[in-house]
Amino acid sequence: MTITAPLGFRASGVTAGLKASGKPDIALVVNDGPSDVAAAVFTTNRCKANPVLWSEQVMATRTAKAVVLNSGGANCYTGPRGFQTTHASAEQVGGLIGAGAIDVVVCSTGLIGEQLDEPKLTAGIELAAGKLSAEGGAAAAEAIMTTDTHSKQAVREGEGYRVGGMAKGAGMLAPALATMLVVITTDALVDADTADRVLREATRLTFDRLDSDGCMSTNDTVLLMCSGASGVTPDEAAFGELVADVCHDLAQQLLGDAEGADHDITIEVVNAATEADALEVGRSIARSNLFKCAVFGKDPNWGRILASAGTTNATFEPAELDVAFNGVWVCRGGEPGESREKVDLTERAVSVVVDLKAGDSSATIWTNDLTHAYVHENSAYST
Amino acid sequence: MTITAPLGFRASGVTAGLKASGKPDIALVVNDGPSDVAAAVFTTNRCKANPVLWSEQVMATRTAKAVVLNSGGANCYTGPRGFQTTHASAEQVGGLIGAGAIDVVVCSTGLIGEQLDEPKLTAGIELAAGKLSAEGGAAAAEAIMTTDTHSKQAVREGEGYRVGGMAKGAGMLAPALATMLVVITTDALVDADTADRVLREATRLTFDRLDSDGCMSTNDTVLLMCSGASGVTPDEAAFGELVADVCHDLAQQLLGDAEGADHDITIEVVNAATEADALEVGRSIARSNLFKCAVFGKDPNWGRILASAGTTNATFEPAELDVAFNGVWVCRGGEPGESREKVDLTERAVSVVVDLKAGDSSATIWTNDLTHAYVHENSAYST
Repeated sequence: MTITAPLGFRASGVTAGLKASGKPDIALVVNDGPSDVAAAVFTTNRCKANPVLWSEQVMATRTAKAVVLNSGGANCYTGPRGFQTTHASAEQVGGLIGAGAIDVVVCSTGLIGEQLDEPKLTAGIELAAGKLSAEGGAAAAEAIMTTDTHSKQAVREGEGYRVGGMAKGAGMLAPALATMLVVITTDALVDADTADRVLREATRLTFDRLDSDGCMSTNDTVLLMCSGASGVTPDEAAFGELVADVCHDLAQQLLGDAEGADHDITIEVVNAATEADALEVGRSIARSNLFKCAVFGKDPNWGRILASAGTTNATFEPAELDVAFNGVWVCRGGEPGESREKVDLTERAVSVVVDLKAGDSSATIWTNDLTHAYVHENSAYST
Repeated sequence: MTITAPLGFRASGVTAGLKASGKPDIALVVNDGPSDVAAAVFTTNRCKANPVLWSEQVMATRTAKAVVLNSGGANCYTGPRGFQTTHASAEQVGGLIGAGAIDVVVCSTGLIGEQLDEPKLTAGIELAAGKLSAEGGAAAAEAIMTTDTHSKQAVREGEGYRVGGMAKGAGMLAPALATMLVVITTDALVDADTADRVLREATRLTFDRLDSDGCMSTNDTVLLMCSGASGVTPDEAAFGELVADVCHDLAQQLLGDAEGADHDITIEVVNAATEADALEVGRSIARSNLFKCAVFGKDPNWGRILASAGTTNATFEPAELDVAFNGVWVCRGGEPGESREKVDLTERAVSVVVDLKAGDSSATIWTNDLTHAYVHENSAYST
């Protein structure tokens, strides 16, 4: 079920042969309405893939009747011919569901710098349209996987309406530029402004704070489609919480399945002067290869955390910082605190808290450790 | 010879027992004048080690009569007691050479968050002072090594004067927060303004552009000491070139000995609108783990280069970028160019050129690949 749990949606997942593995590689999600309100956030990378360039045009209308997603090829750095391929897919889907190309969002993921096989793509879309059903959510979630070891899905129940979601990839984790693709569906009746506000706030606190290797994909897309089929106009705050909860659930699933990771690390920066300060410090730590290697080595190396914090412009006094690993305050006031021997980093979940003592704002960033398996997967991926 | 190649300098390197390995760990360099002009650049990390905090005070006088360097402990995040240890070292060296504490620069490198063994340090400095000689340069260069596999030294001959240098560590490469320490000596007669200008320009184009893992050390120090013993006042441009040449030589030695690296990568960004743009793009590529893993895997993955460039604010059109690996233009105008099969990445030296087609500025950044050995060394370092 999942993305087809809310009323008004049909989906399918099929094998078009774009993937060498022969696994499913085309997913189609159709919004049968009555409403076709949609909102989306895209990668902020300036080198955007063709499907992102196209889908940005679609989203200018603030509506979408369908989204077609393919794995097995990112259609990125493929020039005008690649854009034409994307546009043809949108046109084909539009024709099959009685809509225009401009109603169809397109997402692609996989290797970059190569053209998609157009005949296979066309045949696959035809097949996917024929298999659309209100039970197709799980099949769609399977078809968008690349190096994922399992599909990611989530559903939440609101007051008379539902929110469902599927995701693939490793998001901001961006292994091999594989893409974070997320589709969220709801049968709540919401207007375009509400959908946009709710989606932006939800992604800001979830997917945007997943920072596994600091590499930003060229294809990232998070799409919210609202069918209105429940007839229920939700309270915005409650609806926002539900969408954020689905995003958080999917983000944690992405984190747990990140390529090569041994540890899921939660970095909480507390008592910052501003949320932006807390975020800047959290991101700088999440991007420190030295810190990430240390966690892989089960070493509560707080010095590498302070050194990362020291590269930021956040407000704090270096000699006042406290740092805890899994609840043990190994650094107090910029000096050794409790014994590092007390810290046990054998579990997959690792908690780091950094106290800036500069205010009352905070932020949480999620990341992974840097492992041999990460290096292996990302050095061998395209060879 | 090296740092003692210029007239007016004595140096020594001894074993104080700060290192568990029992290898040399204290180096002393004394400037016998007649001039004691000096200039220095320090890490811009806000979380600075105690020796950096002290040495910044010394350099406010724009003179220095000696520098004492220890490996086997960074004296970083060690609070007021650690600062006191640094100050006591300066005072002790001053007493031994007939100068004040304020004349003595102190540098430390090694593990952080631990106090130095003061009795060992004191005895070691006493020993080092007794071994000072005009042939002690090589011994000093040995004593500052941590994970370096060999010492780094360079000498250049000017018109009637010399410039010598020694370096340790992996600089901006910053393995395990081990530090880049560089001491450059000259017997040229230069004033403080000239020394400062020349050193800043030289480091800007050499050590500052060495960016192996994006992690900034808490202890980095580059010190230039000018004895004036040759009696020759050099032409500033020629002197500047010589100092830059010594810095470049040492920087390349650091690059070649970076922990765990399989490849030395030169990233040249050309035809940028400004030098700052070229630098921003170069650094973003040098900090992409995905790019660095690809080079380790001998994969000319230009997509990861474009994706890194796309995260910057530099002026360029994404669809116009060209990228070459070892002279093969694998990407032309943001699309596949020459066959990637033509690129051979088996040699240690790798050249990447990115053409932004936006102006006539350029910049070069040096970095290393991301390897299993890097992960191993940095996950096992302090355990």
